[in-house]
Amino acid sequence: MSPFVVADGRNFRLRRMDPDGSTHLPLKKEDAPALLSKTVERIAALQERLYAHDRWGVLLIFQAMDAAGKDSVIKHVLSGVNPQGCQVSSFKVPSSEELGHDFLWRTTARLPERGRIGVFNRSYYEEVLVVRVHPELLEHQRLPASLVTPRLWKERYEDIVGFERHLARSGFVIRKFFLNVSQDEQRRRFLKRLDEPDKRWKFSPGDVKERARWHDYMSAYEEMIRRTSAPHAPWIVVPADRKWYAHQVVASALEEALAGLDLQIPKPRAGERRELDRARRSLATSSSRGSSPSRPSRGSSSAS
Amino acid sequence: MSPFVVADGRNFRLRRMDPDGSTHLPLKKEDAPALLSKTVERIAALQERLYAHDRWGVLLIFQAMDAAGKDSVIKHVLSGVNPQGCQVSSFKVPSSEELGHDFLWRTTARLPERGRIGVFNRSYYEEVLVVRVHPELLEHQRLPASLVTPRLWKERYEDIVGFERHLARSGFVIRKFFLNVSQDEQRRRFLKRLDEPDKRWKFSPGDVKERARWHDYMSAYEEMIRRTSAPHAPWIVVPADRKWYAHQVVASALEEALAGLDLQIPKPRAGERRELDRARRSLATSSSRGSSPSRPSRGSSSAS
Repeated sequence: MSPFVVADGRNFRLRRMDPDGSTHLPLKKEDAPALLSKTVERIAALQERLYAHDRWGVLLIFQAMDAAGKDSVIKHVLSGVNPQGCQVSSFKVPSSEELGHDFLWRTTARLPERGRIGVFNRSYYEEVLVVRVHPELLEHQRLPASLVTPRLWKERYEDIVGFERHLARSGFVIRKFFLNVSQDEQRRRFLKRLDEPDKRWKFSPGDVKERARWHDYMSAYEEMIRRTSAPHAPWIVVPADRKWYAHQVVASALEEALAGLDLQIPKPRAGERRELDRARRSLATSSSRGSSPSRPSRGSSSAS
Repeated sequence: MSPFVVADGRNFRLRRMDPDGSTHLPLKKEDAPALLSKTVERIAALQERLYAHDRWGVLLIFQAMDAAGKDSVIKHVLSGVNPQGCQVSSFKVPSSEELGHDFLWRTTARLPERGRIGVFNRSYYEEVLVVRVHPELLEHQRLPASLVTPRLWKERYEDIVGFERHLARSGFVIRKFFLNVSQDEQRRRFLKRLDEPDKRWKFSPGDVKERARWHDYMSAYEEMIRRTSAPHAPWIVVPADRKWYAHQVVASALEEALAGLDLQIPKPRAGERRELDRARRSLATSSSRGSSPSRPSRGSSSAS
């Protein structure tokens, strides 16, 4: 996945990244379903170890223009994972209570616990994307006037970098995905949404307004990637013009992140082992007393 | 209050600070009650403006050895403040869910909103105090083994500094109080707790054990103050051997912090003013129709 990973953003240029992907890494469409289902299987197995080990946590962040396919990626890459170990949070327009706090507050409440995968469908990065393109939104945040200076955006990048470094030091692996769709492909998907009755609910007239600010958004994405990429929290610029390609890139990046962790199934210590052995013996013989409704064979096999 | 304020901790030495206070700033005990009640009155008035302005927020953090008087300070300094604009959070042993997150997570949920004063009775600073003196507590935090290195404490100081800088940039004024009680005075207060039946519940046998680590704790407090003081988040080293003295120092520091803010009661804009004028006329004449049970004089006076 290395052609898409930005671990050091200083020289990053968005226009060098191809929304189609094939110039960077060729994949064949006919191989895609089998490849994805193998990758998802391995992710599900690794996630079980993550849960049992209970020391590392994983945070996946998705940012993109409308219709780039965030929902579709989340569905296809994470559907195989046990939902007890995976929680998805979507962040839309902030509430009045959320606006009463600093801009990292509302997402913090939804961070994953250790042993889990947390998915942010949009995130605190909206604060340097939509808010940067529409600075009038800052007024809703009720910041004291003296703090709204030209330094504000740099301060936000810096605060985000500090926050993610803190998370990484606390045992949370961060992967940030920018789904890089082309303006042409977005137009095609918008038209499709408008043409198909079952997809119309996904379209809002505001989407076309935002589309008109395409170049402002691309500048904001580029600067965000330049300023907030880090080895412990890289941006992955996902070619998103072909959905099956995007799914594979995200799935492989997640598998790679999980496979890089030292995930051990906890082993009972000597004292605990003896106790478990006693428990097994007690369960194995409990049927003779007739006190347990469960069959001894099941009890002893689940303890072994 | 300047002799007690540490805005730059690089040269800070705890042993230079007198737990009695009189060598730094003389106050007379007989003047204390009147002085405190005046200060608390001004705090209450400033807090009303803080609430109406709704742009700045205030975070007060209290850290101290047992029996230094945290509860007593909070009670005496903040009892005059409208509780709708003030919330106190006490942090004791973290829950299992809290331990599943990074160490700043559990306090973040309890941060004050804009317009309010939030009080932390203990805080994330416990992570570099009790956890530093008892590093075996780290095991409960389930950090991946590879992240528990000798750099851990420095990283925690750095993460706290970054977090508080972010809060300050977001409009939150931070004041951190270390109640500096002497070892002798703590002994006297412990004995008093044990001697008075109504105070015994405040004493736990563990308190004496912690007292035995006094010097380790003082080193941890000193390093904390050296590494996390900042102009926007100073430590205030409160002489705490005399309670009335400590109350005044904390009250004055809070008053100073509030008085330093540009707190404006929001004024209606021209359009809103006209609407309010219409509302006043409508309320003033509503009694003639008999539709309102309230007297017109009250309605018009509360709109003016």
